[in-house]
Amino acid sequence: MLLTNGDIDHVAGLLSLREAQPFTLFATPAIHRVLRASSAFDVLAEDVVARRDVELGASFELVEGVTATIFPVPGKIALYLEKTEEAQTGALVTDIEGEQTIGVEIEAGGRRALYIPGCATMTNALRDRLAGADAVFFDGTLWRDDEMVQAGVGTKTGKRMGHMSMSGDEGSMAALAGLDIGRRIYVHINNTNPVLIDGSPERVTANRAGWEIAEDGMEIVL
Amino acid sequence: MLLTNGDIDHVAGLLSLREAQPFTLFATPAIHRVLRASSAFDVLAEDVVARRDVELGASFELVEGVTATIFPVPGKIALYLEKTEEAQTGALVTDIEGEQTIGVEIEAGGRRALYIPGCATMTNALRDRLAGADAVFFDGTLWRDDEMVQAGVGTKTGKRMGHMSMSGDEGSMAALAGLDIGRRIYVHINNTNPVLIDGSPERVTANRAGWEIAEDGMEIVL
Repeated sequence: MLLTNGDIDHVAGLLSLREAQPFTLFATPAIHRVLRASSAFDVLAEDVVARRDVELGASFELVEGVTATIFPVPGKIALYLEKTEEAQTGALVTDIEGEQTIGVEIEAGGRRALYIPGCATMTNALRDRLAGADAVFFDGTLWRDDEMVQAGVGTKTGKRMGHMSMSGDEGSMAALAGLDIGRRIYVHINNTNPVLIDGSPERVTANRAGWEIAEDGMEIVL
Repeated sequence: MLLTNGDIDHVAGLLSLREAQPFTLFATPAIHRVLRASSAFDVLAEDVVARRDVELGASFELVEGVTATIFPVPGKIALYLEKTEEAQTGALVTDIEGEQTIGVEIEAGGRRALYIPGCATMTNALRDRLAGADAVFFDGTLWRDDEMVQAGVGTKTGKRMGHMSMSGDEGSMAALAGLDIGRRIYVHINNTNPVLIDGSPERVTANRAGWEIAEDGMEIVL
């Protein structure tokens, strides 16, 4: 198991693997600290689940024959740590690069895939890394930045949450257009995002731009 | 929302109600302390979710027209706090009565129901409380004490986990036999419990003893 973020939607599933299921939990030291700040995650007992630190830029064997390399991605710290962050630093930064939001490059059998479920903004370094990949799984949280506000389900924009949107001049479809990528697949899709609706104009637009929309149980063969 | 226990299966669902869903969270001071020891639960922001302490024995209005009274039930502390408990006290007690495992008596419209999803052993006081209830929802974790060991999915007995079994001389079917109870319904059923299998001998036995087996989406009208 490799965590790319310490926020609830990335870590709560660990609680369903509690007690007697052995596995190795890879994460940055910062994300491991987030877990340790919640005693509930102690259900992952030390003698069953090994917690291993991975440094940014490091490559390691995720499972046999599969190499993973983690790298920082613009984002923010976990929601439930925001108050502490604001108190300590005076402000909340939503597109900082650090150990709290990471991407993963996965290599096996001569193929290369990238998994980036959260990304606040595109950088040249990230674009370079994505170029030539056999598959890219990318942050598909929102279609447009004010989507949750418009839907009346929240007051936060995508930018505030540390997510770039799919559409628009600064969106991920535009940012990755023209890059040589085998398959581009949106993941981490919010329930307000209209691409979830089969046949919606937004879904059609995303598909035409070469993007697939991930779904439960999806399996990818490269 | 009323918590009767601080263990993962009782509290993890709170994480799905995060951010913007307003409600009041009732619990004993001890269970509230358990939540506060996990910063992940800070997603239930203070200005949206009010956390209210309820003392053992106290009655309060759960929702309009519905009165709840909480009382201690023999049980143990949350799994992930066991090590701390053992270190502090030298031993783990699995049938202590305190603020960590509670039952709830719910009264509305002249009807009375009891909800007791975890119970390590039957006491005379508890039996007296159950007598005459219109409905009892009771700890149905295991059919027999060594069921998880026999199934090869764990090393713990029901007793070790703070749960009395359904069957046997000391089981809950025997303990409540003969009491005047409108409906008796098992809840909190472990996935090793054969009563979950429709038509199993154990299900038939439980049904013949007057017990119903709860299922997802069940609605009760008294």
